[in-house]
Amino acid sequence: MSKVLPLLEPTGEAVAPCCPPLTERPMTADEAETAARMFKALGDPVRLRLFSAVASHEGGEACVCDISDVGVSQPTVSHHLKKLKEAGLLTSERRGTWVYYRVEPSVLAAMGQLLISR
Amino acid sequence: MSKVLPLLEPTGEAVAPCCPPLTERPMTADEAETAARMFKALGDPVRLRLFSAVASHEGGEACVCDISDVGVSQPTVSHHLKKLKEAGLLTSERRGTWVYYRVEPSVLAAMGQLLISR
Repeated sequence: MSKVLPLLEPTGEAVAPCCPPLTERPMTADEAETAARMFKALGDPVRLRLFSAVASHEGGEACVCDISDVGVSQPTVSHHLKKLKEAGLLTSERRGTWVYYRVEPSVLAAMGQLLISR
Repeated sequence: MSKVLPLLEPTGEAVAPCCPPLTERPMTADEAETAARMFKALGDPVRLRLFSAVASHEGGEACVCDISDVGVSQPTVSHHLKKLKEAGLLTSERRGTWVYYRVEPSVLAAMGQLLISR
């Protein structure tokens, strides 16, 4: 049921940001659809904490084993990380036993751009 | 039932941003609660389009009468603008017949800061 953001190529490589700054011109319906999905993914306190935990972790990546201190179970952590990945905010790579999550810097930058006033 | 963000003084004046960049350190529960409310407010495509319509409107402000071209009824527009105001993303002022909405630049900048990598 989950949709991968058009912002990401099928390979998982990040591509150009979707949208101009919010203050530049009214967004089109398509642009708003894409950007709202990213904002929505960060619109949950637990998910936002997990995202921040990955983003600020040593080396810019973390596995579920690294970020279990937000007061929810490991399956819940995995669920939220999956949602963040589906929204295009994280990429993942399996290494041995664990899946490592990494923040996609270009996507973060693109979201930041949206919020910059010109 | 709606809650006003702690980011805003009771007067409606914007105050300092809530949180450090997401990449700097894991967010606390309180910080995540505050920031998630703002992201959630932008996590709906119609609301995001309306926000962008206000943000990019001449003079940085708009009334419902100015932004009725997103394909929803005027009461729906008013409802979404109220939600954005409750999240601290817009301020409003009644002038004559209409209520004018204005983007709170410091709040937008604070959200942008959250997404900046250091």
